[in-house]
Amino acid sequence: MNIPIKKIGLVAKLQSPAATDALQTLIYHLQRRDLTFMLHQGSVDALPQLADLPIVDTVTLGKQSDLIIVIGGDGTLLHTARLLARYESRMVGINLGRLGFLADIKPTDMTNDLDAILDGHFIEEKRFLMRATAFRGKTILTRCNAVNDIVIHKWNTTHLFGFTTHINKCLLGNQRADGVLISTPTGSTAYCLSGGGPIVHPSLNALILMLLFPHTLSHAPIVLDNDSEIEVTLQLNQDIEAQLTCDGVASQTLLPGDRVTIKKHRQIYLVHPPNHDHYATLRDKLRWGYQST
Amino acid sequence: MNIPIKKIGLVAKLQSPAATDALQTLIYHLQRRDLTFMLHQGSVDALPQLADLPIVDTVTLGKQSDLIIVIGGDGTLLHTARLLARYESRMVGINLGRLGFLADIKPTDMTNDLDAILDGHFIEEKRFLMRATAFRGKTILTRCNAVNDIVIHKWNTTHLFGFTTHINKCLLGNQRADGVLISTPTGSTAYCLSGGGPIVHPSLNALILMLLFPHTLSHAPIVLDNDSEIEVTLQLNQDIEAQLTCDGVASQTLLPGDRVTIKKHRQIYLVHPPNHDHYATLRDKLRWGYQST
Amino acid sequence: MNIPIKKIGLVAKLQSPAATDALQTLIYHLQRRDLTFMLHQGSVDALPQLADLPIVDTVTLGKQSDLIIVIGGDGTLLHTARLLARYESRMVGINLGRLGFLADIKPTDMTNDLDAILDGHFIEEKRFLMRATAFRGKTILTRCNAVNDIVIHKWNTTHLFGFTTHINKCLLGNQRADGVLISTPTGSTAYCLSGGGPIVHPSLNALILMLLFPHTLSHAPIVLDNDSEIEVTLQLNQDIEAQLTCDGVASQTLLPGDRVTIKKHRQIYLVHPPNHDHYATLRDKLRWGYQST
Amino acid sequence: MNIPIKKIGLVAKLQSPAATDALQTLIYHLQRRDLTFMLHQGSVDALPQLADLPIVDTVTLGKQSDLIIVIGGDGTLLHTARLLARYESRMVGINLGRLGFLADIKPTDMTNDLDAILDGHFIEEKRFLMRATAFRGKTILTRCNAVNDIVIHKWNTTHLFGFTTHINKCLLGNQRADGVLISTPTGSTAYCLSGGGPIVHPSLNALILMLLFPHTLSHAPIVLDNDSEIEVTLQLNQDIEAQLTCDGVASQTLLPGDRVTIKKHRQIYLVHPPNHDHYATLRDKLRWGYQST
Repeated sequence: MNIPIKKIGLVAKLQSPAATDALQTLIYHLQRRDLTFMLHQGSVDALPQLADLPIVDTVTLGKQSDLIIVIGGDGTLLHTARLLARYESRMVGINLGRLGFLADIKPTDMTNDLDAILDGHFIEEKRFLMRATAFRGKTILTRCNAVNDIVIHKWNTTHLFGFTTHINKCLLGNQRADGVLISTPTGSTAYCLSGGGPIVHPSLNALILMLLFPHTLSHAPIVLDNDSEIEVTLQLNQDIEAQLTCDGVASQTLLPGDRVTIKKHRQIYLVHPPNHDHYATLRDKLRWGYQST
Repeated sequence: MNIPIKKIGLVAKLQSPAATDALQTLIYHLQRRDLTFMLHQGSVDALPQLADLPIVDTVTLGKQSDLIIVIGGDGTLLHTARLLARYESRMVGINLGRLGFLADIKPTDMTNDLDAILDGHFIEEKRFLMRATAFRGKTILTRCNAVNDIVIHKWNTTHLFGFTTHINKCLLGNQRADGVLISTPTGSTAYCLSGGGPIVHPSLNALILMLLFPHTLSHAPIVLDNDSEIEVTLQLNQDIEAQLTCDGVASQTLLPGDRVTIKKHRQIYLVHPPNHDHYATLRDKLRWGYQST
Repeated sequence: MNIPIKKIGLVAKLQSPAATDALQTLIYHLQRRDLTFMLHQGSVDALPQLADLPIVDTVTLGKQSDLIIVIGGDGTLLHTARLLARYESRMVGINLGRLGFLADIKPTDMTNDLDAILDGHFIEEKRFLMRATAFRGKTILTRCNAVNDIVIHKWNTTHLFGFTTHINKCLLGNQRADGVLISTPTGSTAYCLSGGGPIVHPSLNALILMLLFPHTLSHAPIVLDNDSEIEVTLQLNQDIEAQLTCDGVASQTLLPGDRVTIKKHRQIYLVHPPNHDHYATLRDKLRWGYQST
Repeated sequence: MNIPIKKIGLVAKLQSPAATDALQTLIYHLQRRDLTFMLHQGSVDALPQLADLPIVDTVTLGKQSDLIIVIGGDGTLLHTARLLARYESRMVGINLGRLGFLADIKPTDMTNDLDAILDGHFIEEKRFLMRATAFRGKTILTRCNAVNDIVIHKWNTTHLFGFTTHINKCLLGNQRADGVLISTPTGSTAYCLSGGGPIVHPSLNALILMLLFPHTLSHAPIVLDNDSEIEVTLQLNQDIEAQLTCDGVASQTLLPGDRVTIKKHRQIYLVHPPNHDHYATLRDKLRWGYQST
């Protein structure tokens, strides 16, 4: 996106004094520049002493912001990205805790890094979202978006369940497992990694499909083109309940015969300071320098 | 490729009576069609009773064939693909043993399947090769191509070694391991899978980078864009020897300070019969239907 | 155990015509020997046309049987072993489906193999059970036994949870994961294997402890002496529910602060025909002969 | 072992100024106690300014020492343990680098910890060694001992090789792989861990058998009783060379038809200071507290 940054949207984590402090520092600092600000209505409680700042709803935030500054951490940024999916917004994250994979600006570097970004010095990358649509017969049960991962997993039961997976209408297999996970490259360093999945570079147009505790002999994760449509159908004749989960949020209870399709859906533009180094983040977060012996 | 198939190149595994039989059956059957045939000079011994068939060198085979029929198995096809890399040939494989991932036509289906292909009914997919170039200072030690994988691994020693990996000139890390493997999607079901790597769909423009027995805590395989240039430099100050191996062929002994770059390089066009189903092959080869308990 | 086999207990899977058939064949065949039979009351429905056979309760079955013949599969045998844990019974399993790890006599070999066993020609091995005891403060919530595995896992939630694990009162670690699995060697080829665990020989006095999708960098399974007492305490200050599951049976909902201890508890004596070969079973079940490429 | 400690053997890493310093500090400190000291002849170069200290050969060191203090790290301790295997010595390790799994006394704690140990306050654990014996026909090619692991692996070749494994004369399987590793519990946190193996508690009488890059579908590590005899036979009719490696030391080149047996062999008594905590070492070395996200 080559849009010059004139209008700034602001989103902050709630019930976090550190977020309130950072938000106030940020507004104070940036007001010296010729910029318009707006605060998302969902973040109003994060700024108790109201600055002279318009409060806007999600639609306005998404439509009018040239850049959305998210103050919190990876979780806050994931939530905001899902909320604003349809506006394909440009976002940058201030991280109040340990640096994240997504929100990679420290509060102490915040004013410098944002000055650089507002001066046009930044790295921008696309991160695509997925959409899951759950069907019961021809009825749509729910639609939900995910930046990291979509999981269909056993729920309220200790038993694995049977499901059939198709990729672009071709049978992948009939499987029995605790569940199945579909991850974006962005999500490959999250839940997917805990389960033994590969780390996929964010620039790659790929999806990762992984079975959870499958009842089978060989079960390497599968990496697919992200133009693929994945369809998971719960087999009939089993007494189970499953759950559709998007980025860790339980979205829909599923019954035998239900069907979920998963496809690429929209994208956000993630902004990093000019010195951003993806591999340095990986080295730090995954402690590649450390040795066990 | 939309070139009509008029000229057929033939390559066959040596010292295999089954290959000889299949080659003779094939020539006899296809001679009834209005086609030109040529046999690669490296396969002459496979056809002791010479048919009236021109024997051609690699250059002619590569330049003139509209389709190369390879009789043998995945190994013969890999070898032929490396040999003809610069001609970006169209190839199809007859498999004399158990069906392969690449050579997927059974001898019993051979005449039917090839008739269909020659009638224009086929599925064609690109499979890219990689090229490794090894440097000692500014001198090029060797160049070699691989369809499956390039491995840099300890050699003649029981000790792991230290190396530094860059991706597109960015540091990935300083690592100590038994070696490092870079695989294409085609190779993801070969050596890469033995080491716990993911299965990557052949259509994906990706490379897989995996450490072999690394001396580190976390070491998930990494999946990269195949436009990436990977550079592996053997660290100085270690008394080791390493080996550069392309598709299982030892290509160059490496010493401390040596440097290997790995990049995408050319492609072949792999032809399948019209009923080809990639996932059916995976299910069969990996026995996804089988259950351990 | 060197007790001669005079009294036979019988347990059969319900609602299985194959089990009924096998049970009738078995009774008919064995009645020619000088043996006493008794049928467990829970299996009465499996034998609709009552033979002249005493029907006994669990206590009598456990106390009086010199050998319990279980007709069904690994699941039926697991259930019977838990039911009779306190009697440390001697058991043999007839498998109506594909051969199991535990029940390893085929219906077609049943009469021959049982004749050999009754003639004193058999292999006997101990398989120990575990007992989980769940506490809320000083109150015991439940006790349950397992032959295969005990799992404490998230329940009704998509969030991982925090717990603290001690081994013999020594801190192993504070962990966040989807759960934790403790398996016997017997269970090492069941759920444990799906999660990437090792295969532990049944003769080894060992327990396996494995985290499920842990939020940590390194998480190899841990193999411990089976005299170890494992204690898992759910951390306070989290809004979660977890479930204690024994051999796949949900046994107790757990809340923050709850504590579960897991120890070795009793054993059964598993009888095999004289030609039993543990490694042959492994080769067959895990298809070690098969090759992916 | 309840032998009171009167005679101290000393072993130090060569070409390490830190080892020399620690050795001198140690001798100076301990000379105030009523003890006899002796320095292994292999460590003479580590103490250039000779104290009034007898220099002894391996036999005397092994036979006469009540405790051997090894100054260096895990590597020096492994080497000393193999050297002295037949004397089943009692050893303690001073670690000059980052704390090891075996040598767990820091130089700064050295005098305090050794005072405590000499006063009888210590934890002692047995660690068993393995012995590999390689045969060509009926000829013994070599015998070698290992504290950590024995590996039979491809050598001077890029090709996997075929071998047959027996456990206590029972066939485990015919396998094709880059090699096979047999590890003690002590070695389970070394090479074995890099390859995805489990962590086995040192008190467990177990061996771990793991295939390296096997050409098979399922290949979980196997944990066996350490009374098992493992036999690996290189299959005939292959053009390969393999290497037998003990604790990382290349010991014997193997050819098709050669046979290696591996058995438990002797033990050492590893002494720790009284506050030793095995799980604390694991937590520290494996960084279990660290989280990737």
